[in-house]
Amino acid sequence: MKHTIFLLLLMSLTQLSQAQTWIWYPGDYEIWLANQMNNRRTERGAFFPHFWKMDSHYVLVEFSKKVDLATDEEIEIAVEGKFNIKLDGKLQFGMPKKFIVPAGKHSLNIKVWNQATPPCIFVNGKNIKTDSSWKVTYEDKEWIDESGKASDTSATIYMAAEGWADFNTADKLPSKYKLATEEHKAVSVTAVPGGQLIDFGKETFGYLRFHLLSGKGKINIYYGESKEEALDTKYCETLDQLTVVGNNVTDEALASTSKNEHFYTLANSKAFRYVYITKDAGVDFKELSMLYEFKPENQRGSFRCNDDEVNKMWEVGAYTMQLTTREFFIDGIKRDRWTWSGDAYQSYLMNYYLSFDEQTVRNTIWALRGKDPVTSHTNTILDYTFFWFLSIYDYYMYTGDQHFISQVYPRMQSMMDYVLGRTNQDGMVEGLTGDWVFVDWADGFMDKHGELSFEQVLFTKSLETMALCAKLTNNAEDQSKYEKISVDLRAKLLPAFWNETKKALVHNRLNGMPQEQITRYANMFAVFFNYLSPEQKQEIKNSVLLNDSVMKISTPYMRFYELEALCALGEQKQVMKEMKDYWGGMIREGATSFWEKYNPEDKGVQHLAMYGRPYGKSLCHAWGASPIYLLGKYYLGIQPMKAGFKEFSINPTLGGLKWMQGTVPTPNGEIKLFMDTKTIKVTATEGKGYLTFTSKSKPKASKGMIEKLDGNKYRLMVDGKEEVVVRYR
Amino acid sequence: MKHTIFLLLLMSLTQLSQAQTWIWYPGDYEIWLANQMNNRRTERGAFFPHFWKMDSHYVLVEFSKKVDLATDEEIEIAVEGKFNIKLDGKLQFGMPKKFIVPAGKHSLNIKVWNQATPPCIFVNGKNIKTDSSWKVTYEDKEWIDESGKASDTSATIYMAAEGWADFNTADKLPSKYKLATEEHKAVSVTAVPGGQLIDFGKETFGYLRFHLLSGKGKINIYYGESKEEALDTKYCETLDQLTVVGNNVTDEALASTSKNEHFYTLANSKAFRYVYITKDAGVDFKELSMLYEFKPENQRGSFRCNDDEVNKMWEVGAYTMQLTTREFFIDGIKRDRWTWSGDAYQSYLMNYYLSFDEQTVRNTIWALRGKDPVTSHTNTILDYTFFWFLSIYDYYMYTGDQHFISQVYPRMQSMMDYVLGRTNQDGMVEGLTGDWVFVDWADGFMDKHGELSFEQVLFTKSLETMALCAKLTNNAEDQSKYEKISVDLRAKLLPAFWNETKKALVHNRLNGMPQEQITRYANMFAVFFNYLSPEQKQEIKNSVLLNDSVMKISTPYMRFYELEALCALGEQKQVMKEMKDYWGGMIREGATSFWEKYNPEDKGVQHLAMYGRPYGKSLCHAWGASPIYLLGKYYLGIQPMKAGFKEFSINPTLGGLKWMQGTVPTPNGEIKLFMDTKTIKVTATEGKGYLTFTSKSKPKASKGMIEKLDGNKYRLMVDGKEEVVVRYR
Repeated sequence: MKHTIFLLLLMSLTQLSQAQTWIWYPGDYEIWLANQMNNRRTERGAFFPHFWKMDSHYVLVEFSKKVDLATDEEIEIAVEGKFNIKLDGKLQFGMPKKFIVPAGKHSLNIKVWNQATPPCIFVNGKNIKTDSSWKVTYEDKEWIDESGKASDTSATIYMAAEGWADFNTADKLPSKYKLATEEHKAVSVTAVPGGQLIDFGKETFGYLRFHLLSGKGKINIYYGESKEEALDTKYCETLDQLTVVGNNVTDEALASTSKNEHFYTLANSKAFRYVYITKDAGVDFKELSMLYEFKPENQRGSFRCNDDEVNKMWEVGAYTMQLTTREFFIDGIKRDRWTWSGDAYQSYLMNYYLSFDEQTVRNTIWALRGKDPVTSHTNTILDYTFFWFLSIYDYYMYTGDQHFISQVYPRMQSMMDYVLGRTNQDGMVEGLTGDWVFVDWADGFMDKHGELSFEQVLFTKSLETMALCAKLTNNAEDQSKYEKISVDLRAKLLPAFWNETKKALVHNRLNGMPQEQITRYANMFAVFFNYLSPEQKQEIKNSVLLNDSVMKISTPYMRFYELEALCALGEQKQVMKEMKDYWGGMIREGATSFWEKYNPEDKGVQHLAMYGRPYGKSLCHAWGASPIYLLGKYYLGIQPMKAGFKEFSINPTLGGLKWMQGTVPTPNGEIKLFMDTKTIKVTATEGKGYLTFTSKSKPKASKGMIEKLDGNKYRLMVDGKEEVVVRYR
Repeated sequence: MKHTIFLLLLMSLTQLSQAQTWIWYPGDYEIWLANQMNNRRTERGAFFPHFWKMDSHYVLVEFSKKVDLATDEEIEIAVEGKFNIKLDGKLQFGMPKKFIVPAGKHSLNIKVWNQATPPCIFVNGKNIKTDSSWKVTYEDKEWIDESGKASDTSATIYMAAEGWADFNTADKLPSKYKLATEEHKAVSVTAVPGGQLIDFGKETFGYLRFHLLSGKGKINIYYGESKEEALDTKYCETLDQLTVVGNNVTDEALASTSKNEHFYTLANSKAFRYVYITKDAGVDFKELSMLYEFKPENQRGSFRCNDDEVNKMWEVGAYTMQLTTREFFIDGIKRDRWTWSGDAYQSYLMNYYLSFDEQTVRNTIWALRGKDPVTSHTNTILDYTFFWFLSIYDYYMYTGDQHFISQVYPRMQSMMDYVLGRTNQDGMVEGLTGDWVFVDWADGFMDKHGELSFEQVLFTKSLETMALCAKLTNNAEDQSKYEKISVDLRAKLLPAFWNETKKALVHNRLNGMPQEQITRYANMFAVFFNYLSPEQKQEIKNSVLLNDSVMKISTPYMRFYELEALCALGEQKQVMKEMKDYWGGMIREGATSFWEKYNPEDKGVQHLAMYGRPYGKSLCHAWGASPIYLLGKYYLGIQPMKAGFKEFSINPTLGGLKWMQGTVPTPNGEIKLFMDTKTIKVTATEGKGYLTFTSKSKPKASKGMIEKLDGNKYRLMVDGKEEVVVRYR
């Protein structure tokens, strides 16, 4: 339990109280809310929950705060659950809505029980307000012995309470949280055999609304991301059936709270562009609209350039992100609607260049982790466990939020204990029975047995992440432990997997024997994780990344990293071409949001099939939106060098564009950049850092001293909120 | 995970399906129900939940069954929660109440989500019925890959489903379970200053019922186990306040479902004999009765003898057990109303000689254990963890229920891992920060520091229990592991704690140094655990048990074991005297149920005080009922020698009585015994075993051959259902 003491110390030193909100046990509300969200998945009318352990909140939680008041203070107390109040250890009568805390130093404890929804409190007084300065525990171990002597609670594990800025008044009950909605009209209604096909114009998400519903009978609703899917009543992935009596629907599961004499809104949200409706003759309705449901996001990032296809790519990416950013970052809106760690990891990275929504990143990290004991990999997937670790340090780098690291670190420890408990005699991970070794949806054979180089690379990075986070929580013992394991494992990577003939990391080892297959996965991660020598990286570029004989990647998921690796090697021109081919290709196929998988060689309805089902493929999948990230990080070239952009780096590259301009959000500001072939303009309202660029002749800056580096490289410190203009060639 | 495979093997070999019931994940309903019960504790109007982690059910559970049907079969499906059905892996539409399973071999899966109450199902078909032959898991890990290939679920942990015989029809929803009630009238109403004092004649438990409630105003209710407590409005332990408007009560917490124009029944159950009522002038009622709440138990055990005081002791003990046997075995009905492991351990043992209620033993064992991860000792108390282990093997011995051992064994493992993770360099346990080293409520100094001999004795026995249960679950690896640790620890006990001068185990060691204090605790357990030589046992009898200079025990809790040790040493005459003094003493003080603590030297209201509070003491405490156990096990002398009374032993001892007769229940039968100074009559409807007794001359039996043993001892095999009569002197 040593780490706890470190954590508490750290919290008291570094933690700034957030604003007044409802508060709860860290992660508990998020885990509960994720259950609500994940359990909205359906498959052809059947409830479809996930196949790993569904955790839930601690049902009994104690909140506490030490106060020091100049005068008596009346506090208002709102609680979700049955509760008691203790003042200086003494229980108070009943469950009061108001309570007077006398002047002086006091300790205030509120203990809440709630089975169905997370125990939460909101306290409002002149000085006493619920915020992250409150302590919280699921087990106070406060007993008194025969004589009335209280127990020693110094080993009790207290965490800082958590809350969301949204829940800032007593009437905003966390358990009642809903995303925003607005009504959208259909763009066309077409009579088709057996019924009508309604088109909402683009991929969308929400609740169908029937206007002037009347009569008696059944209405069948077939949803489609494509016209083909909606019209295929046998194979469309989602459907609903209503039993209508008058303007009411009698099916229990579809009972809606949003209805009146004019309309009836379904309780089931769905993803669709098209809806095919068939119905009994005795039932009728006048119009079908939909209640679009969305998380209101402040789109603080932007990108524009001279190439309209690239601009369109960015916009479709941003819309894909808008649709998949819900209570949590989910994978796709039609089918899974679940939090998936590998998918979410990419959403986080895109989000840093789009809405910089820190809250939803934290939510998703909590939800994916769940509670102890750990009984499987994240989403049961070996690689997804590692992406979970990686996401936490990235979050810290982009946001600078050290407090969150303290809160989540105990669960990082237990997750890593699980991983370390399943390594082989070489300290490497292999897929054991029950583990899903995913890697990618590949269009060819990929061995999942033995030690995959890809998994070891991610495992190494995860161990390095543990060491970094141990350091952030002042846990020197853990830090040195994880440093040692990560250094040992990293030292084994090249001896185990590097094939000097093929100039590449091989895909896997079986019984200690390196195999012959080369896949792209480990190679591309090893490039941008810097696990290779500069020579090896260049070799990999040609032997793997630009080598068409190595199995191609056909998911945006792994194309994300493939193109990132090429960008990291300075191949922005090549990447621009590939982006235009690949994401441009989807747009040319009519995509209004980006897809789960895209093989340019597929034709027509082939694009819709996956998992052996004709419409199995998701046409709105978060991992499709990677241009957002690539354009921000590798063209605008902006990324944090120290946590929370206290220091940033700006390495802009046109990569074949004539001009580009864009904004990258930072925790409390933004970095704006314009670049054409002669000018770079930068405004950074937060942090400082080097602008690095190449110029054929000596460049000039409106402010500051430009330093010359090797070759044609120059750099300029950007520090201050005014625009800096650089002329270069 | 090796043990799982053993468990599954074992289950398939040994498990007989129980009758059709609602089913759930093993332990989950019990843990949830315990929360409902434990959270009914109040202290002077304040909600008072416990101070250790409150676990809850798995919110998502999958039930499955492989069926083989001669013809199509329609099943009715009742579910507590949102659910889906899969037939042979294929999801079915909606949440059907009826479903046709086609003829042939099929696998049926029902997956249920329920946040608020445990996921439970009840399936009823001609052949398909929910029972313990269904498998259940909280994590099926059933995913399909891109090609539609299903995952390898061979490592998925499936348990046998559990249910209660009570829940045997679709409309008996487990979440709606309530104990039985019946209306009881007051025996007297007395006008006292300020109000009226109502006496219900004896200690009781339930819900006050106001008849013809009318007017408007407040009613104050002060409960008392004693008259003094009820009348002491400042210090009584429990109270209620009603705000009455007409025949209604407006206080949210007291809103009752049991009311009509004639009466209003409170929603809060309480323990009391007396009720003191004060009220505003504007409010009135005609009569106060109460709804007695109880678990209907079949009192299969009995004891009668020539001594009426002993008969009364047995009856008051039985009533104390009736009051404290609720959804679970609780400690006391007034104050705690919680499951406490040390208390429950004694309730189990008494129960085997009274109602033989196997269900409530299992319930309480589940409730006390909760879920993983283990974050504290049971009830936070070191010794209570050990009593939890001990209770499981006892349960097996009395009931023969090996299936339960398989179900609970994984939690025994994780609990013991917790204990073993907290041992010192000598492999002994000490109280660490946050641990409650309880032992007993002692009336003098008792050191709780260092290595207590008492704790090591219980720890040793717990390790032996682990080894025995590992064997029962065919887990040879665990068996040898725990045997080794227990043998090592047992070998250390005497060298560490035996004081040859004092002829006793000393109380503790500090920094490796045995201390001087002798207490009774370790000594008495070491006697009946057989951890001592015959000589040492006899020495302890005189040096400790019958030595008045060793601190006396004043709780029935530890008197239980003290007297058990004396009985094990053949001191039944002495024990009879002490029982009559001690339990007889409480009865002479007016007890209608037995108390938490009794010091014969206290006078008057001193008997009511505890924990520094004038009415802190519980006057109905389960651990007070030990005569039930002592009379059954050590006078009737009946106990199981092989699991489930397949073999029993009967060693009757009059212990100074002229005659006695009684019944000891067995799982499916009973053993009846009558004994006076010349005759022993035995009828055993189940099992077989030796009747052992002493006789001055050669005894005669109506059936079977009497064997002569050493001294005056004889024995006779009792096998068969007819009465055996033995004449002896």
